Order: sequence, then C-alpha cells, then structure tokens
Amino acid sequence: MVVETVGRALTKAPRVVIRGIGDLLGRRSAPVGSPPGALAIDDSLPPPRISVMARTAEGVIERETDRIDELRDAVGASQLSWIDVQGLGDRAALEGLAEAFGIHPLALADVVHTSQRPKVETYPDHDLLVVRVLALNEAGEMEVEQLSVVVGASYVITFQERYGNILDPVRRRFRAQLGPLEEHGGDFLAYAIVDTVVDGYFPLLEAFADHLEDLEEKVMARPRPAILTEVQKTKRTLIMLRRSVWPLREALNIMLRERSPRFTEAIHPYLRDTYDHCVQVHEVTESYREVASELTNTYMSMVANRTNDVMKVLTIMASVFIPLTFIAGVYGMNFEHMPELHERWGYPAVIGVMISVGLGMLLFFWKRGWLGDGRDDP
Amino acid sequence: MVVETVGRALTKAPRVVIRGIGDLLGRRSAPVGSPPGALAIDDSLPPPRISVMARTAEGVIERETDRIDELRDAVGASQLSWIDVQGLGDRAALEGLAEAFGIHPLALADVVHTSQRPKVETYPDHDLLVVRVLALNEAGEMEVEQLSVVVGASYVITFQERYGNILDPVRRRFRAQLGPLEEHGGDFLAYAIVDTVVDGYFPLLEAFADHLEDLEEKVMARPRPAILTEVQKTKRTLIMLRRSVWPLREALNIMLRERSPRFTEAIHPYLRDTYDHCVQVHEVTESYREVASELTNTYMSMVANRTNDVMKVLTIMASVFIPLTFIAGVYGMNFEHMPELHERWGYPAVIGVMISVGLGMLLFFWKRGWLGDGRDDP
Amino acid sequence: MVVETVGRALTKAPRVVIRGIGDLLGRRSAPVGSPPGALAIDDSLPPPRISVMARTAEGVIERETDRIDELRDAVGASQLSWIDVQGLGDRAALEGLAEAFGIHPLALADVVHTSQRPKVETYPDHDLLVVRVLALNEAGEMEVEQLSVVVGASYVITFQERYGNILDPVRRRFRAQLGPLEEHGGDFLAYAIVDTVVDGYFPLLEAFADHLEDLEEKVMARPRPAILTEVQKTKRTLIMLRRSVWPLREALNIMLRERSPRFTEAIHPYLRDTYDHCVQVHEVTESYREVASELTNTYMSMVANRTNDVMKVLTIMASVFIPLTFIAGVYGMNFEHMPELHERWGYPAVIGVMISVGLGMLLFFWKRGWLGDGRDDP
Amino acid sequence: MVVETVGRALTKAPRVVIRGIGDLLGRRSAPVGSPPGALAIDDSLPPPRISVMARTAEGVIERETDRIDELRDAVGASQLSWIDVQGLGDRAALEGLAEAFGIHPLALADVVHTSQRPKVETYPDHDLLVVRVLALNEAGEMEVEQLSVVVGASYVITFQERYGNILDPVRRRFRAQLGPLEEHGGDFLAYAIVDTVVDGYFPLLEAFADHLEDLEEKVMARPRPAILTEVQKTKRTLIMLRRSVWPLREALNIMLRERSPRFTEAIHPYLRDTYDHCVQVHEVTESYREVASELTNTYMSMVANRTNDVMKVLTIMASVFIPLTFIAGVYGMNFEHMPELHERWGYPAVIGVMISVGLGMLLFFWKRGWLGDGRDDP
Amino acid sequence: MVVETVGRALTKAPRVVIRGIGDLLGRRSAPVGSPPGALAIDDSLPPPRISVMARTAEGVIERETDRIDELRDAVGASQLSWIDVQGLGDRAALEGLAEAFGIHPLALADVVHTSQRPKVETYPDHDLLVVRVLALNEAGEMEVEQLSVVVGASYVITFQERYGNILDPVRRRFRAQLGPLEEHGGDFLAYAIVDTVVDGYFPLLEAFADHLEDLEEKVMARPRPAILTEVQKTKRTLIMLRRSVWPLREALNIMLRERSPRFTEAIHPYLRDTYDHCVQVHEVTESYREVASELTNTYMSMVANRTNDVMKVLTIMASVFIPLTFIAGVYGMNFEHMPELHERWGYPAVIGVMISVGLGMLLFFWKRGWLGDGRDDP
Repeated sequence: MVVETVGRALTKAPRVVIRGIGDLLGRRSAPVGSPPGALAIDDSLPPPRISVMARTAEGVIERETDRIDELRDAVGASQLSWIDVQGLGDRAALEGLAEAFGIHPLALADVVHTSQRPKVETYPDHDLLVVRVLALNEAGEMEVEQLSVVVGASYVITFQERYGNILDPVRRRFRAQLGPLEEHGGDFLAYAIVDTVVDGYFPLLEAFADHLEDLEEKVMARPRPAILTEVQKTKRTLIMLRRSVWPLREALNIMLRERSPRFTEAIHPYLRDTYDHCVQVHEVTESYREVASELTNTYMSMVANRTNDVMKVLTIMASVFIPLTFIAGVYGMNFEHMPELHERWGYPAVIGVMISVGLGMLLFFWKRGWLGDGRDDP
Repeated sequence: MVVETVGRALTKAPRVVIRGIGDLLGRRSAPVGSPPGALAIDDSLPPPRISVMARTAEGVIERETDRIDELRDAVGASQLSWIDVQGLGDRAALEGLAEAFGIHPLALADVVHTSQRPKVETYPDHDLLVVRVLALNEAGEMEVEQLSVVVGASYVITFQERYGNILDPVRRRFRAQLGPLEEHGGDFLAYAIVDTVVDGYFPLLEAFADHLEDLEEKVMARPRPAILTEVQKTKRTLIMLRRSVWPLREALNIMLRERSPRFTEAIHPYLRDTYDHCVQVHEVTESYREVASELTNTYMSMVANRTNDVMKVLTIMASVFIPLTFIAGVYGMNFEHMPELHERWGYPAVIGVMISVGLGMLLFFWKRGWLGDGRDDP
Repeated sequence: MVVETVGRALTKAPRVVIRGIGDLLGRRSAPVGSPPGALAIDDSLPPPRISVMARTAEGVIERETDRIDELRDAVGASQLSWIDVQGLGDRAALEGLAEAFGIHPLALADVVHTSQRPKVETYPDHDLLVVRVLALNEAGEMEVEQLSVVVGASYVITFQERYGNILDPVRRRFRAQLGPLEEHGGDFLAYAIVDTVVDGYFPLLEAFADHLEDLEEKVMARPRPAILTEVQKTKRTLIMLRRSVWPLREALNIMLRERSPRFTEAIHPYLRDTYDHCVQVHEVTESYREVASELTNTYMSMVANRTNDVMKVLTIMASVFIPLTFIAGVYGMNFEHMPELHERWGYPAVIGVMISVGLGMLLFFWKRGWLGDGRDDP
Repeated sequence: MVVETVGRALTKAPRVVIRGIGDLLGRRSAPVGSPPGALAIDDSLPPPRISVMARTAEGVIERETDRIDELRDAVGASQLSWIDVQGLGDRAALEGLAEAFGIHPLALADVVHTSQRPKVETYPDHDLLVVRVLALNEAGEMEVEQLSVVVGASYVITFQERYGNILDPVRRRFRAQLGPLEEHGGDFLAYAIVDTVVDGYFPLLEAFADHLEDLEEKVMARPRPAILTEVQKTKRTLIMLRRSVWPLREALNIMLRERSPRFTEAIHPYLRDTYDHCVQVHEVTESYREVASELTNTYMSMVANRTNDVMKVLTIMASVFIPLTFIAGVYGMNFEHMPELHERWGYPAVIGVMISVGLGMLLFFWKRGWLGDGRDDP
Repeated sequence: MVVETVGRALTKAPRVVIRGIGDLLGRRSAPVGSPPGALAIDDSLPPPRISVMARTAEGVIERETDRIDELRDAVGASQLSWIDVQGLGDRAALEGLAEAFGIHPLALADVVHTSQRPKVETYPDHDLLVVRVLALNEAGEMEVEQLSVVVGASYVITFQERYGNILDPVRRRFRAQLGPLEEHGGDFLAYAIVDTVVDGYFPLLEAFADHLEDLEEKVMARPRPAILTEVQKTKRTLIMLRRSVWPLREALNIMLRERSPRFTEAIHPYLRDTYDHCVQVHEVTESYREVASELTNTYMSMVANRTNDVMKVLTIMASVFIPLTFIAGVYGMNFEHMPELHERWGYPAVIGVMISVGLGMLLFFWKRGWLGDGRDDP
C-alpha cells in the first residue's frame, strides 16, 4: 500500500524530490485557442480502469467493468455508488461516462487537463472537487497527481491520472460501512476521500522537516554552492506544496459558506475539520519556507565567516614574518660599514630581536582573539 | 499563424525580451489637461482595416469593408455580428464607428489610448473589455498589444492596435459555429476572445521558465554583472506580465459578481474557467518573481564563494613561502659570526627545515579542508 | 505551583528552549486514512485523573473520582460543575465521559489529538475551546500543552495532556466564588480558564526579551556561527508562539461576533479583554521576530566589520614593511659597482630612509583613520 | 505654461529633486493643542489673488476681484461659478470667503494647513476635495503643492498655495465650454480639475524612469557611495509620490460608492476613469520602488565583484612572485658549501626554474579563468 | 509647559531615547491568574491629585479636592464637568471614584494597568478611551504615559499616570469656553483631549527625522557598529510609536462607524479629522521604519566599500614592490658566474628596470581607476 511505502521510504531515506523552475508551471494539455470543453487527452496516461462499489439493501457490491450501461444500472439499483476511474488515457470512455452521468463539458475538461488548481465547483447536476494528491514514492521523491471527485445525487465518481491505491483506506471503510460512511450519502464519501488526501500531506511535511534539518546541518558544517542550490529547489517544492493546499483551503471555506444541495448540514463539522487540517498544513508550509529563506542567509554568513577565518590566517602569517624578513634583509645588505656585522653578539642579538618581534605580534593577535582556530567554540 | 510561430520561436530560441525601466510605465497618448474623451490618435499605428463576420439564418457571412453603413446593415440583418478593427491610426473612421454603434466617448478613448489596465466597464448600451495581448514574436521577444472588446446587444467589436492574427482560432470556430459559439450570443464570443488571449500567456510562462533556468545555470557556473542585469530585467518583465494578468483577474471577478445585462447566466462557468486560468498565471508569475529574487541572492553567494576561493589560494601561497623566504633571508645575513654558515651540513639542513615547514603548512591547510580546488565537490 | 516556578526560573536563568525544524509541525496521532473521529490514543500520556468541583446551594463541593455515573450525579445536583481531566492516556475513560455528556466524536478527537490549532467550535450541545498552554518549566525551557475546554449547559470539562497545576488560580477563585465566578455560569468559568492561559504568555515574552537582549550583546561582542544558529532557533520558537496566539485571537473574535447560546451577553466585555491581551501578545511576538531578523543582519555586519579590521592590520603591516624590505634587498645585491655601499654614511642613510618611508606610510594610514584599533570608539 | 515647461525640463535635464528624511513628514501649521478649526496662517505664502469665472445665460464672464460681495453676486447670477483663490497668506480674506459661502471651519482649516493627505469629505453644504499637485519646476525639481477644491451647489472654489497656472487647461475648456463642461454642473468642473492634477503625475513618472535608468547605469559602471545615497533619496521621493496618490485613489473609491448629493450619476464613468489613472500611477510607483530596492542589491553585488577583482590581481601578483623571491633568497644564502653556486650553469638554471615556476602559476590561474581583466565579457 | 519644553529640547538636542528589547513588551501589573477586574496598584506611581472644572450657568468653576461627594455634587450641579485625576498610586481613592460614577470594574482595571493598547470601549453607562501620551522630556528623551478618558453622560474623567501638564491647552480652552467646547458636551471635550495627544506626536516625528538624518550622515561618514546598534534601537522605538498610533486609528474608525449614545452626530467631522492625523502619523512612522531599514543596508554597503578600499591599497603596495623585491633578490644571489654583477652599467640598469616595472604597475592600476583615493568623487 502506498501509505505504508511512504512510511518506509521516510525511515530509510527522508528526501524530497527537487524540481526545476519549469515544474512550477505544470502541464497544460489544451492548445492555445481551442474551444472551451475541447478535450486534449494526454496519451502518456494509461487507459481508464473502472470499478464500482455500491451500497445496496443487501450490502456493499463491488465490480470492475468498462461498460457504461452496467455502471448506470449499478448506480440505479443502489443507495450510494462509488465509481473509481484510474487512468485518463482514453477519450471515448471518458466522454461516454460523462454523457451517462450528465457531467458538464467544462467539468470533464477540468478532470482531463490535469494541472488544475484545487477547487470546488457547483454545476446544476453535480459538484466537482479537484484536489492534488502529493505523495512520496518508494525512492522518497515527491509525486503530484490530480484527483477529481464528481459528487452527484446518489453517486460519487473519482478520477485519478494513474493506477494507484491512495484511496484504499476509504475503500476499506466504505466496504465495511465504518463510521459516518454507514448511514450518510455521497457528501460523506467525498469528504472521506478529500480528508484522506489532506492527511497524506502530513508525512510529506515530516520529510520536509528532516530534509531542511539535514540542509541546515550541511550549511553550518561546510557551505558549498551545491547546498545553496538544493535549498532553493526545496523552496520551490514548498511553493508547489503551498499551491496545492492554499486553494483547497479556500475551496473548503466556500463549501462551508455556500453549501451545494448535495452537501447536507451534518457534513459541516467534518468539512470544518478538514479545513482546519488544510490551514495547519499551510501554516507549517509557510514556516518551512521561512526556514529555507533563513538558510540562504546562514549560507552567506558562513561563507563570510570562512573568508574572515582565511583572512586571519593570512594576516597572522604575513604580519609575523614580514617584519622578520625585513630585519634579515637589513643585515643582508652589503654596506662596508655596518658595525653590527662584525660583533660576536650580532647574530644572536638579531635572532633575539626576531623572536621578540614574532612573539610580540602573536601576543597582539592573541589579545584580539584571533588565535582561536577560527572554528566555533562555545 | 502567430501561435505556431510562438511554438517555433520557443523551440529554437527560448528567450524573453528584456525591457528598460521606462517600459514599466507604458505609452500615454493624451496630453496633460485634455478634456476627457479627447482622442489623441497615435500616428505610428496603421489605418483601420475593418472586417465583419455575421451569423445569419443562411449561415456565416464574411466581408471586409470600410463603409460604416454597410457594417450597420450587416449587423442589423444578423443574429450576431463580429466586427474586427485592426489598426487604430485614423480618427475619422473610429469616431464614425463609435457614433454608428453608440459607443461612449470614454470607452472610445480607452480603446484609442492603448496603455490601459485590463478592465471591464459596463456602459448603458454596451460593455467594454480591455485585455492585453502578450505574445512572443518570431525573434522570441515579448510584445504587448491592447485588445479592446465592445460587447453590444447583437454585436461584438474588437479593436487591435496593429494587423495581426491572434484571433484566428476564434474566427475559425465562429466560422464553423463550433462549440458553445453555435447557439449563444455576444457574451460567448467575447468570452472566447478573452479566453484565447489568456491561453496565450501560458507559452510565455514556459519561455520564462526556460529563461530563468538558463540564468540560474549561468549564475552558478560563472557569476558576472551582465547576468545580474539580465535577472533584474527579467524581474521587470515579470512585473509587466503581472500587471497584465492581475487586473484582468479582478475584472473577471467583478463580471462574475455584478453581471451586466448582456452576459447571460449560461456564461458563468465559462468565465469562472477563464478566471481560474488568470489566477494560475498570476500565481506562477509570482513564483517566478520569487525565483528571480533568489537568483540575486545566489549571485551574491557565488561572488562571496569565489572571493573566498581566491583568498584561500593567496593565503596558501603566502603562508607556505613567507616563512621559507624568511629562513633564506636569515642565512643571507652578512654577520661574520654565524657558525652554521661554515658547516658542511648547513645548507642541506636548512633545505630540510624548509621542506618540513612547507609540508607542515600544507598539512595544516589540508586539515582545514582548504586544499580542495575551491570548486564544488558533492 | 507552576506559575511561581516560572517566576523563579526567570530570575535565575532567563532562557527559552530552542527547537528544531520538525517541532514546527507538532505531533499528529491519527494514521493517514483513518475514519474521522477515530481516536488514536497517545500511550505516552498518563491515564486520566478526574476531579469535579460543583457549586451547589450548600456551597462548593470537591471530589476526585473515576466513576462516570458519580460525575453525572454531581453535575445533575449542582448549579455549575467543573470537571477537570488531567492525562489523556486511556481510551475507555475518555469515550465513557464523552458518551455521558454527549460530546461530539469530532470534538473528542480534537481533544485527544493534541496538536490542534487553537479554535472555538460550536456543536449542538456544547462548545469546544482549544487553547495551547505555553509555560517555562523549572529548567527555563518552553513547554507546549493542549488544553481543551468543553462548555455545556451547566458544566465545563477541561482536558489537559498531563498532570499539572496551571489552573490552580482558577480553582482557588471557583472554590472561594471570587469575582464574577460567584454568580455567573459556565461561560465565565471557561473565560477565566482561557484568560489564565493567555496571562501565562506574558512571563514567556519577558523571557524572550531577556534572551534576545542576551543574543544581541553576544552578536555585538563576538559574532560566532553558534549564535546565529541560536538566533534562528529563537525565531522558530517565536513562530511556534505566534501559531499559538494568532488563531486564538481569531477564535475569540468569532466568539464575540457569533455568540453561542451558552455564552451570555454579560461575558462580552470580558472576552474583549482577553482578545485585547491576545492582540498584545501577538504584536509583541511580531516585534520580537523583527528583532531576531535584525540580529541576522547585525551578525553579517559584524563579520564584515571584523574582516575589514583584519584587512586593515594586514594592509598596514604589509604596506609598511614591503617597501623597506625592497630597499634592504636593493643594497643586498652583489653588484661590484654600487658606490653607496662603500660610503661611511651609506648604512645610516639607508636606515634613515627606511624610517622615513615607514613613518610616511603610517602617516598615510593615520590620515585615513585606519590606525584606530578597529574596535568601536564613540 | 507649466506643463510645457515640464516637457522642456524633461528633455533637457530629466532629474528628480532629492529630499531629506524630514520632508517625508511635511509642514504642520497649527501648534499642538490649538482648538480644532483654529487657523494658523503660513506667512510665507502670498496674499490671496481671487478670480471668478461664471457661466451665465449670456456666456462665460471672467473677473478678478477681492470683494466678497462681488463674488457672491457673481455666483448668484450664474448657472455655475468657479472661484479660484491663489495664495493663502491672508487670514481675513479667507475667513470672509468661508463665511460668505458657508464653508465649514474644519474644511477651511484643511485648506489652510497645507500638508493634508488627499481626501474627499462631505459636509452638509459642500464637499471638500484635497489633492496634491506634483510638478517638475524649470530646474527639473519636484515641487509639491496642495490644491483644495470646495464643491457647492452652484459654485466651485479652488485654493492653491501659490500663484500658478497648473489649472490653465481647465480654465480654457471652461471658457470655451468644451466637452462635458458645457452642460454639466460643479461636479464635472471639480472632476476636470482633479483629472488635470492626476494627468500631471505621468510626466513625473517618466522623469523617474529616466532618473532610475541613469542611476542603474552609474551603479553598473562605477559603484560609489554617492550613488547609493541618491538611490535611497529617490526611494523616499517615490514614497512621497505614493503618499500623494494612494489616498486619492481611496478617496475616489469612496466617492464612487457613497455619492454626495452634489455629484450626479453622469459623473460616475468619469470618476472611474480618474480612479483608473490613480491606480496606474500607484502601480508604476510601486514598481519603481522595487527597482530602486534592486539597485541597492546591485550596488552591493558590484562592490563585491570589484573586491573580487582586486583580490584576483593581488593573488596573481603575490602567487607568481613569492615563490620566485624565495628561490632567489635561497641562493642569496651565505653558506660556504652550496655546490650550485660554483657551477657555470647555476645562474642560468635557476633563472630557468624561475621562469618555469612563474609560467606554471600563470597557467594555473589561466585555467581557473582568473586571467580575464576582471571586467565583464559577454 | 511641556509642549514648549519639547520645542526647546528639539532645537537644542534633537535626540530620541533608545529602548531595549524588553520595553517592547511594556509593564503588566496584574499577576497571572488574578480574577478579572482585580486591581494591582503600581506603588511607584504618585497618589491621585484630583481637580474638577465644571461649566455651570454662572460660568466655569474650578476646584481641587479629594472628597468624592464634593466631586459628585459638582458634577450634579453643572452642565458638563471635567474631573482630572493625576497619579494612580492609591487603590481606595480610585475605587471610591469608580463606585461614585459607576465605572465598570474592567474599565477601572484598564485605567490602572497602564500598558493597554489604545482603544475605545463602550460600557452601558460610559465610554472608555485609552490613548498613549508620547512626549520628549527636557533631556529630549521619549516618555510614554497612558491617558484614560471616561466619558459619561454629563462628565468626563481623565486619568494620568503621573502629575503633568500635557492637557493644559485643553484646560485653557475649557476655561475660556473656546471653539466648539462652548456649546457641546462631553464628546467634544473627550475629542479635544485625544486630539491634543495626537497633535503631540508630530514634534516627536520631527525629532525622529532629525535623528535619522543624523544617523544617516554618520553611517556615510564612518560606519561603526555603535551606529548600527543605534539604528536598530531607533527602529524599535518606531515600533513602539506605531503600536501607540495604529490601534488608536482603528479605535477612532470604530467610533466613526458604531457611534455610542454619548457621541453626537456633530462630532463626526472632528473625529474624522483626528483619524486623518492618526493615519498621517502612522504613514510617516512606516516611512521612517523603511528609512531605518535602508540604513542597515547602507551600513553594509559602506563597510564593503571600505574593505574594497583597504584591499586596493594593499594590492597596489604589494603588486608594485613584490616584483621589485624579486629583482633585487635575483641580484643578491651568490652565484659565482653572474656576468651582470661585474658590469659597470649593471647597477644603474637594474635600478632603471625597477623604476620601469614600478611605473608600469602604477600605470596599470591608474587605468583600472584604482588610484583614486578610495573616497567618493562626484
């Protein structure tokens, strides 16, 4: 299961994938000037794999099918059905599904063009929730996927870009009719799905915390340009994360204020709960961005510190030896009449003067506190 | 077609034109103190070339004309007409057109004085939408043009500064009566035009991403003042871009809240879609500005790093040789009584001492980690 | 008592505990994908210790018990009861209590999962207030604990993570029926509890002020990387503090606007008073964060200053002695025809020239103001 | 005319006057503790020179007078009168005028104490508009003046601090009854005046653009402290400009929302137009402030670059010659037993070694890319 | 009188007192956990000195008394009474006064605990205005004092921490029944008091302007750490100032929107006037904070400049003499076979070479523009 994999990836190699500047933009499938609602299928995505879970009087029925009429029958015969579509790589299947359930062309376009901002939109016959699934893969890299949820009168349809098991926990709870999913309708199912996605942001934040602590240690120990690059890329990944959370927070806020007919009064405290989690994720993300900004300052300070250390070594060496070399130079002059040269005590006296001058310089630097080793002493 | 040119320009030379500070202001045509509504025609613009496309019971009719009465007849005989005016260089033609269709003097002034902020204004007989067309030309440079859209009861008039084919995709769809343009009125036509303009911002953002990644690489590889200048000019171009998008977002938001009589309920989800795209462009623009700001910091860090590297080389050279030179200086003194000078082992011993001191210094620097090559090692 | 301990800790060792980046996130107990309202008990917390204080016609009765029916009886027989639960480490006891008093499952989950943002939530039968208790422990370190207050019709239940006496002042006032607690209901008791928690933030702020002043002195006296690290960690602790205060301010504001049925008109000025204190704490926290940011700048400036001082010493030493060494070198050349070498006045003349050159250089530096000792002189 | 002078000043010497920190505050005439409405006349201002232009059935009548009753008669006999007061240096005249037209004491105080924020205030009998006239004088320096406009039922009174012709364009249009001034009332006259003032901000912005581009070039070419000072003073002048524009934008917004009885429906699109111009000026001002902030960063980068260049020269010189000097020193030692000294090939061999070492060092630096001239090469 | 003293202090020694980080918090008298409304008297404050001024039919009566019943009689017999309490050091007197005039316990607590944020609170029987008096004392230092104004039906009570004459101008106007104080009630008196306090902020701002200009000059002339410290402390004092003004602006805004029964319609334009002054003070304060922030940047730039100058001197000295010393070293070598040594022209030739090399180096530096004196030349 993905969630457990994330856990394992974290304990093994807490690392967040680093992204280039272009990734801040995301994919956009429809070419400029296409009519609205024109679908530009991304061929790299797998063909849809459709499954349905339906709560009927006899219990929960599960089936995997790609026949639209079968899906429609299943929905018709149940109290509440959950159609899960994984893979968006087939235009005909998606358009068939949309037609069968009366999904608005713009809603379908938002489902297919997978770099939407998270949002909630109310159409006459259904609501559309778009959220972004962020997860660490087995290599510990952050992966972004769009999850679209269409909430109709007696059905919920989820669309994922690729095959995946991110929704397995919800599936288990729906199968067992656990918690509020037992008695309530599609609004509670949609809530459970969105809540599971938002819960998945927290292990990510933990990975970021580890990554930033790791970077901080490296900056303090040995500031190198490569670390600076990594700090900035981490900052960009955090911007990505914020852009996944902030609009969702807004969207949930709108849902709480202007409730759609398909969302009952009873869901209110639950949505508020998910809203609170979004706010928390957003706040922590902002704090981490501040930390990443600080790291750039720390980097600069560390480099300045090291330059200062290098300077001190140079200054001490040069200041101690330059005067001594001068003295040696004086007595290396070839004047005929330099009385000191001919005295017995000349050489030892000059050596003595040199030692005094050298020690004097060292004393001067010691008083200035320059003779520490330039490292940090507590 | 422009759009394809943009694509080609991008694959060839992804480059965004760099602008001076003065361009942040833009042109302003009317002299200080002119009466409101006074038209100051920009003579550098070409004379208007007017074409009309009209949806009639018999199909879509297209005509190119410069006679106002012909235009009025075409509009009168059609369900929906689209008058496209390219070039704003002739006062009489524009005033004639404005009079024939009852365009408010202030609206006409906004059309003619082409550095307006994007906006939506509702006049009694028509609405005025002002948007800014941003496109990369064949040389890969960003060009800004104002596109004004007057939406009347049964007609839409578009005004462009120069001859151009930016609206060709909409023209094709209108000609073929594709999508929602088939049955709906001027509001959908206006929407299709604005949506096409906003869609055109995305290739621009991609060019910016490439440009910033290019600059980042250059800063990391070899920080030079010229790159810093380019970073700052890119930042200014991004400010330009933001100033084209942000007010449009506001304007669309106002349109969604306070709907004008000429905009039907059915256009609501479509405008919301364009609004979403504006928000996305704006968010990405802000992210890019942050990236550009970071680059200035990186530049400073890289220069500091290099100064540190230079310092290390100097310190190592000086610290190794200055003591050696001192020793040589000592034995170059001309004292008569320097016993070492007369010993057989004197010279080799001193050479030995020198080698020891030199190696000692190198060992000291190696322990400090200064003997790396000053470049980055992972 | 804790409060006094805080006072003592402050006078002895005004120090604020420093936190890592991961602490900005906080604990989250429920695993990803759990159903809402699922309780994930934190086993490290102690088992609940429950006490009840009830105001009856005969006076205030106090009892410690773990039998739910006893609690229910006590509440039933009193005008106003305060049930205090310390320790959240036993699922059965908490669920029993929640069932007995009709606490909403989501409210109970918020009580148990102790890293909620401060908030006020109105449920049909009760209100939930979540605040964060921040206190300095005996070692002078900041400790964070969640305090949840459930306000029902005739009872108030407080939940604390661990055993503690932070609420003792309120307990004394309730016992003595002091001030507005004498006549008013649960709203005033809840207010008194929250107000006590907010009052507890002020000694913390004083400790921060001392800590920052201490850091500032250290930065000015001797800038070392360790101090920079401490400054940044202090900044993070301030972010923690802000995240405890800001949402509480919002929550109180909401309480003032949309009053729940359990909060009477008379509580209005009291809540406004607590709101004012939150605003004040928040403003001071923001000011301290600005001060901490300034300290990073000061650090950089101090390092730059010191590098400048080091440079001056090197420059003075090198500039004075390098020309002298050159002169000595000239007269150390072995040319046969150097007339000066053979003159009696040669040696003293050269020494004179050397002294002149040396003094000239010193005069030059003195005029530039470089001969100060590099320290600060007023 | 001022406007043309501005144009000339710009083409000749595009320069914006630089202001000290104290100018950010502005003058305040009334001493602390004076009663509200107490007038503190600024004696340095010239005595009022009053003229009236009145639109009557017979045409526009113009007269210059200082007799209050004559003014009142002129206003009484006309459809719309414009009284222009230039110079605020005489208390009696101003109080007489205020009494004759029922101007509120606080409004008169705002007129006289000329460092008000731009604002719009509605009094029972009239409205007061306060705007700040910013203009470049003949020397190209920015001058600030307060223009107050009192809009009554059938009259408009303008107050200027000094004699000036900033309103001449409006005067000409009123005289000729051009544009909307022909038929409309005092609201349109007031609008024309404010619009002329706002139009006057644009040449100023152009001057700022030139000035900033000039500063940027200087910073890139040769960073000196004096340029930094100029950058910061420019920033302050931009703050001044923003403080003239931002409140006006707010005030116009208030006028658009809460219309006073003296402002008709027809003025709405016109005010919206001026509002748009204010927004544009404000946005450009903010962009320029960002540019000025960037310049400080550029300055720092340029200085760091130059220090780096200086370092490189020093390092190259020292690193090449220090080892050579050491070698020379070795063979300058006076040991008796140095076999090389007595060989024929000794001297040329050592010279050869020296040349090899020197070239080796240069090769090392050339490989590091340090042998460029330290300037920028594209 | 204080106001004049301020003026004198400014002309003599424009200096603003510098505060530590702890002062940002302010005093808090009540211990943690005290019941709301509990009074913690600050013993360091002087005992109350109470005076009353009453407007009666016979004129204005003034009396100094400490008997509560006398005060009550005076108020009962007058149209409007102003009770001025200076000194807050006596619990009994304050509680007696509060009881006599029905002051709410929380209001009294706000009066006594003197580090409230400025605010306006409406209680059933009276309003409470809290403002902060900022003044320069004779030594030119900023002093902060809380002034609380209780506005009842026919009386106004002012509470000051210490004896002082800040309200003397209002007292004179009340005594003389000048301006709107003649006919209006307690609202106008309260307004006059608050307005006087706000007017007192302006001389303070002037002092700040002088101080910042002084600091700027010092930074440019000779950047020393002590100046940096002073800049940061000034910034903190500005934060203090902002925290005195911003909440007052908010409070006045609330007063303008939700008028209390004791504030008449006629006071509206007057309050708006004071509100405008607050906005102006706030804006200027923010500008000054920006200026102070810039000064830190300037400091850094100046230090970087100076390091650059020092580097240049070192580089010039070293680069000129190091090659010369090398040449001297070559001819100081003791090889037997160095033909140049034995030539007559050897010595002068070498001296010539040395002069050429030295001049060549100087020419090289002159071309680089390094031979300026390192100071600024225009």
